[in-house]
Amino acid sequence: MDVKQLISDMVDQAREASRKLARAGSEQKNAALRYVADALENRTSEIRKENQKDVALARGKGAKDAFVDRLTLTDRIIGEMAAGLREVSALPDPVGEVTRMWTRPNGLQVGRMRIPLGVIGFVYESRPNVTVDAAGLCLKSGNAVVMKGGSEAHNSNMMLAKVLQEGVRAAELPETAVQVIPTTDRRAVIELLKRDDAVDLLIPRGGEELIRYMVDHSRIPVLRHEKGVCHVYVDASAELDMALEVSYNSKVQRPGVCNAMETLLVHGDMAESFLPPMFEWFREAGVLLKGCPITHRMFPEVEEATEEDWYTEYEDLILSVRVVPGMEEAMDHIAKYGSRHTETIVTENYERAMRFVRQVDSSLVLVNASTRFNDGYQLGLGAEIGISTVKLHAFGPMGLEELTTTKFIAFGNGQIRT
Amino acid sequence: MDVKQLISDMVDQAREASRKLARAGSEQKNAALRYVADALENRTSEIRKENQKDVALARGKGAKDAFVDRLTLTDRIIGEMAAGLREVSALPDPVGEVTRMWTRPNGLQVGRMRIPLGVIGFVYESRPNVTVDAAGLCLKSGNAVVMKGGSEAHNSNMMLAKVLQEGVRAAELPETAVQVIPTTDRRAVIELLKRDDAVDLLIPRGGEELIRYMVDHSRIPVLRHEKGVCHVYVDASAELDMALEVSYNSKVQRPGVCNAMETLLVHGDMAESFLPPMFEWFREAGVLLKGCPITHRMFPEVEEATEEDWYTEYEDLILSVRVVPGMEEAMDHIAKYGSRHTETIVTENYERAMRFVRQVDSSLVLVNASTRFNDGYQLGLGAEIGISTVKLHAFGPMGLEELTTTKFIAFGNGQIRT
Repeated sequence: MDVKQLISDMVDQAREASRKLARAGSEQKNAALRYVADALENRTSEIRKENQKDVALARGKGAKDAFVDRLTLTDRIIGEMAAGLREVSALPDPVGEVTRMWTRPNGLQVGRMRIPLGVIGFVYESRPNVTVDAAGLCLKSGNAVVMKGGSEAHNSNMMLAKVLQEGVRAAELPETAVQVIPTTDRRAVIELLKRDDAVDLLIPRGGEELIRYMVDHSRIPVLRHEKGVCHVYVDASAELDMALEVSYNSKVQRPGVCNAMETLLVHGDMAESFLPPMFEWFREAGVLLKGCPITHRMFPEVEEATEEDWYTEYEDLILSVRVVPGMEEAMDHIAKYGSRHTETIVTENYERAMRFVRQVDSSLVLVNASTRFNDGYQLGLGAEIGISTVKLHAFGPMGLEELTTTKFIAFGNGQIRT
Repeated sequence: MDVKQLISDMVDQAREASRKLARAGSEQKNAALRYVADALENRTSEIRKENQKDVALARGKGAKDAFVDRLTLTDRIIGEMAAGLREVSALPDPVGEVTRMWTRPNGLQVGRMRIPLGVIGFVYESRPNVTVDAAGLCLKSGNAVVMKGGSEAHNSNMMLAKVLQEGVRAAELPETAVQVIPTTDRRAVIELLKRDDAVDLLIPRGGEELIRYMVDHSRIPVLRHEKGVCHVYVDASAELDMALEVSYNSKVQRPGVCNAMETLLVHGDMAESFLPPMFEWFREAGVLLKGCPITHRMFPEVEEATEEDWYTEYEDLILSVRVVPGMEEAMDHIAKYGSRHTETIVTENYERAMRFVRQVDSSLVLVNASTRFNDGYQLGLGAEIGISTVKLHAFGPMGLEELTTTKFIAFGNGQIRT
């Protein structure tokens, strides 16, 4: 197969489709989403059959159970994919929204109108349901998308692509608005990255290596989630029970995800009352603790954290704990070791709550709530295609709005410059 | 000089300063701007003396008059620089603005707050007044800036840097928030481009070659203005006088700038009434005309435009003219040959006006007004640091708001995820 030609054609078709999709009305896009949802449900057994091929291949290669679990499409997961599309179809359409309008002294009415970005390149690893979620968000926001999934899910993704295109066609939109690259050849990604003339944005969802590769090898902007070293700071004035609940939830509710707490910072005045019950809760949940010298002195059984630990995203039941003399030191720690993802302060002090919110430079800064809320659904965006930890274009969860940009519009009656 | 070390130190200091600047209140930033304005006026003769060195060097190298004109700082231009800073100091501060706030079913109050981007790398050619304009916008928006000006303006820029830092210091802000690279060594730019760990955004202002070099050699996002091939489409239902005025102003008022019209598209039904008087106006203004075959048949003295002409940003008194059968063909022409900068429709037809505005994919789309309004001041942003023709992050004129991003903030009372 001529991979270069294949990708070049796909990208050209996506570009062409993006112009039509940008002009499509909300009703037509919503209909496409609902058609895809119906098709997913009607073709569940076919989808599962293709998915079983991937599962068998993975097992043959000795994949771990957790990996196979993530790869497997059950009736329930396919049903959730369909439900997700119907939810997106019910969300407001960002395209065409005039976000503001003002009038200039010469009478020119100026405003900003939301428009799609154009063509999105989406490169992701395993989890075939992401194929449908991402396609749904791109479609609704008026963007054409060229997707490259992991080779482990290739058969599943190709089947899902068929279903997606069927739905798009049924709504009389160009099916090339949603394309999955039909090869596991890695050169396909390389070719995609070269097309900065036609691809407006790259979104990788995968490991650090994939992201770094894309940033290094393309002129196309990359919206990416680098890592989530999230902090909870328990202030001197924290309400004890709330501090325990919020810290516990931030670490234990789902430790393997990016918005789970990795480091707990505790004001010195709270250490004696807060740490003993907290550590008991954590031990019962099987959390391995690492501590600063003060923590280690208070709890000799807690091993000392290394310098590297403070930078580490464990994504596991492991937690670094540091006792700090005050909020300034907590914020300095976050600025030095954090990843600008999510930080929480637990406090009853108004001034410190407001200052923490203003000064901490992270995509979500919370007061008295779990770090686990950094998620498009939880924050009320309706859906998300990822969480950006870079500041350009979008910072934090990216929903439909973040897949658009704004152009200026102006209504005049003959204004000229003098 | 060890350029690598120099740039590395400057960027580290900028990063450090950016944290302090992000926390500075509006009053402190405004005071800095006013101090710089005062210092510019008090030190006009010193500034002119340094500027004269650059002018003498340029003349010695045989620079053209137009070039020397742009390089020269007169009392009037220095006064304008000071006035510009005072205007920026009077603009609303975007930092800290909560753009929206909503409440989730669990009571969590979620919002978005504007924050500075961090450290901006600004690389520009000639025109030393840009040093002060850009520094003012970065300072007000809470961003540290590392600037590299053209070698032709080196003495002027170093003197202006001194004045800038004096004002920043007077306001008790870190003077390293505003730095000009003190060397004309080109390796300085190369080193700056490498620091994607500490520089959040690059803004080039200069030729295509400079922009391409920066995009190719850095992982840092580049907000850039590629070119301005702007169109006016005179619709079948245009009001004749308005069509003449808007077209004339778009081309002639200042032909050397990016928002001047380069191609005039005329509906076939208007050609006979509109083109003869229009061409007479243009000829009187010394505009060289190039036309499509229809135009050439109507006006044999107008030479035929080549395929390349339609893509060309003349930045001069030259204009390409095409007669089109309808608005769809005009929009197709714009999509193919345009640069997504600025397009205008002149029409009295409501449906076509609204459709043109919705469907044309340019940073500013106007109805019945000159293309020359694509400018931060003219559109009411108060100031601009450039015009972006890329869609990511900002599209169109970039004012203070476009030098910020938003983070999510959330106020809870103990919310956890279940």
